[in-house]
Amino acid sequence: MFQINENYQKLPGSYLFSAIAKKVAAYSEKNPDKPLIRLGIGDVTQPIAPAIIEAMHKAVDEMGQAETFHGYAPDLGYAFLRKAIVENDYKARGCEISEDEIFVSDGAKSDSANIQEIFAVENKIAVCDPVYPVYVDSNVMAGRTGVYDPDTERWSDVIYMPCTAENNFAPEFPKAAPDLIYLCLPNNPTGTTLTKAQLQEWVDYANKTGAVILYDGAYEAYISEEDVAHSIYECKGAQTCAIELKSFSKNAGFTGVRLGYAVVPKALQCNGVSLHDMWARRHGTKFNGAPYIVQRAGEAVYSPEGKEQIKKQVAYYMKNASAIKQGLKENGYTVFGGVNAPYIWLKTPEGMTSWEFFDFLLERANVVGTPGSGFGPSGEGYFRLTAFGSYENTLAALERIAKL
Amino acid sequence: MFQINENYQKLPGSYLFSAIAKKVAAYSEKNPDKPLIRLGIGDVTQPIAPAIIEAMHKAVDEMGQAETFHGYAPDLGYAFLRKAIVENDYKARGCEISEDEIFVSDGAKSDSANIQEIFAVENKIAVCDPVYPVYVDSNVMAGRTGVYDPDTERWSDVIYMPCTAENNFAPEFPKAAPDLIYLCLPNNPTGTTLTKAQLQEWVDYANKTGAVILYDGAYEAYISEEDVAHSIYECKGAQTCAIELKSFSKNAGFTGVRLGYAVVPKALQCNGVSLHDMWARRHGTKFNGAPYIVQRAGEAVYSPEGKEQIKKQVAYYMKNASAIKQGLKENGYTVFGGVNAPYIWLKTPEGMTSWEFFDFLLERANVVGTPGSGFGPSGEGYFRLTAFGSYENTLAALERIAKL
Repeated sequence: MFQINENYQKLPGSYLFSAIAKKVAAYSEKNPDKPLIRLGIGDVTQPIAPAIIEAMHKAVDEMGQAETFHGYAPDLGYAFLRKAIVENDYKARGCEISEDEIFVSDGAKSDSANIQEIFAVENKIAVCDPVYPVYVDSNVMAGRTGVYDPDTERWSDVIYMPCTAENNFAPEFPKAAPDLIYLCLPNNPTGTTLTKAQLQEWVDYANKTGAVILYDGAYEAYISEEDVAHSIYECKGAQTCAIELKSFSKNAGFTGVRLGYAVVPKALQCNGVSLHDMWARRHGTKFNGAPYIVQRAGEAVYSPEGKEQIKKQVAYYMKNASAIKQGLKENGYTVFGGVNAPYIWLKTPEGMTSWEFFDFLLERANVVGTPGSGFGPSGEGYFRLTAFGSYENTLAALERIAKL
Repeated sequence: MFQINENYQKLPGSYLFSAIAKKVAAYSEKNPDKPLIRLGIGDVTQPIAPAIIEAMHKAVDEMGQAETFHGYAPDLGYAFLRKAIVENDYKARGCEISEDEIFVSDGAKSDSANIQEIFAVENKIAVCDPVYPVYVDSNVMAGRTGVYDPDTERWSDVIYMPCTAENNFAPEFPKAAPDLIYLCLPNNPTGTTLTKAQLQEWVDYANKTGAVILYDGAYEAYISEEDVAHSIYECKGAQTCAIELKSFSKNAGFTGVRLGYAVVPKALQCNGVSLHDMWARRHGTKFNGAPYIVQRAGEAVYSPEGKEQIKKQVAYYMKNASAIKQGLKENGYTVFGGVNAPYIWLKTPEGMTSWEFFDFLLERANVVGTPGSGFGPSGEGYFRLTAFGSYENTLAALERIAKL
């Protein structure tokens, strides 16, 4: 008789955003007359930029003609896209990353969930707390997290690095040495980040202790401050200790287009075994490439027109972020983030848990946000709003909140 | 110090088709004057059908307007696509599969590699031999296959079900009871299949022994004979023992478009735990949906025009299959398959191994095929040619082979 992977049974509840979607759907069904404003899930609302739309139309046409039809993509992704990535995201910043260290994928969610597969089950992970729930959940499924304590909402074998107002949302080096360190910078959900000098300390720490940093740079396009690294490879020595995961979802609005990439440097090795080769084997065996049309869309992100257009989108969202931050402050909320990231992280009003404030906002203001505790135990007492709505909706949501 | 997943070190060589690609590239580089005809990897050559191209253009336009922009897709896939799948692939054949038992994905390769994750590592797999290498490779990575013996080319914990000319390519019930049974029907690479009555025996066997059948139906569109099931759910009792994986790659030429789906019936349970819920959790946590544009392309596959157009493509490839079969027979080869599948499975000439014949064909006829041994030890002495080339190239390849 077959048996299931029992690790799945350990997962408490459903995936955070699936849970929120269900809760919101139930509310909407009961209250069809109350239009909701969604500042919860980190989904964008601005349409895909014209230069990218044009590139996709062209690629669709190519797929319709035998002479220009494209079947299976190359294992690592098309050279035209990997070239554009290297030129723009690495060479332009002085990082020595080569085209064959880039692995094009269907998005950073898949990559950040799958990357743990190439490591031993015995490896100990460290995560910022709060953080994007996929890191922990994917490790739970793999059996790497030990036992869950519902009282503390913590896994016995996960090293939590609390990031709260008390430490200015900067993770501290853990007492027990982790093997795998997940860093999401700028951070989801707190919207905060580290300076380049602080990040360099993490790279040095990883190289010294023999840890690998799994660096999620999905929000890199939102960095506005000068002393923040756009890639971990701007730090000296990162090539021997870091894998970088990047997304096109937030810089170019590809949440429904699906494209991302992972950088696995060839210098990253474990006793002579190349992690690059392992990921190549994984990529070649369990994945069959991002669509040709989507890879062409990705290429257009780096065209002069594309760059100009997506820059405006990022500015649009950051204007929302400023408005939310300002508006909440004026209404007496304590607010963080929103400077180098499209996320506003606020303290829930005195005496309200994250989920209580979620219900309060949903029912009283018809605004959907994300409860901080969904990102980790130290997120309790916090709440995330995203800047990805339309400007009009963002202002409308603030008005509703002001009236509470 | 971090450690790697040691299971990867057990994998002998690289993924089959990556290995072939490298070998062919090396030959081409040395012999730039010799144009190759590729009948190796199962990649299609006909362009995407006009009705599907039209649907993709429309979807691209939608993505370019705020009012019709689509961000993150629903976890299971868009309802419009799941509805079309259920209506056409299941209801029309009398199978009771509901829309929320369909999980839209980026392709059957990903699904067939990932599906093993929801089962216990201790579970024992059974595979047809020869078969699509992803099944075994993904289980090696998960640590489910034991020790590899390079002499027999077999894994100690894998149950091989030889499918050779001797048993008419029909797998026999294994002596040791497996927990997970991979069946790919019509079969890749042998091109053969089972009758519906034979498949019913497998369903009965699985229900009796408490096994799960992982049913890969990627080549279903090529079935031409009456008594062959188009879905395993045509068999009584399959809902309690089978997961079906389907692809749009071979029926609609989506190898570079990327779309597939998995069916996990709600009736499929293990001690009260629903595998449907587990796969939903996996899907929601480690995947973020197929692109909106691609899901609209999938919907168009089921439109009246789409159906008509892809039917012609399948007929085109099957004309190739007949030509290859006929041509090889005339030249004295022993040939199988090609009736319910786009694959021709031939016996290599006396005294030649699969890889020897690969080199022989590559160097002497400049034709690329796939060595049978790459699909499993019982594939030794066989060779696969695909019908996915153009008709002209297919005939040219046969002419070259005739001259050998």
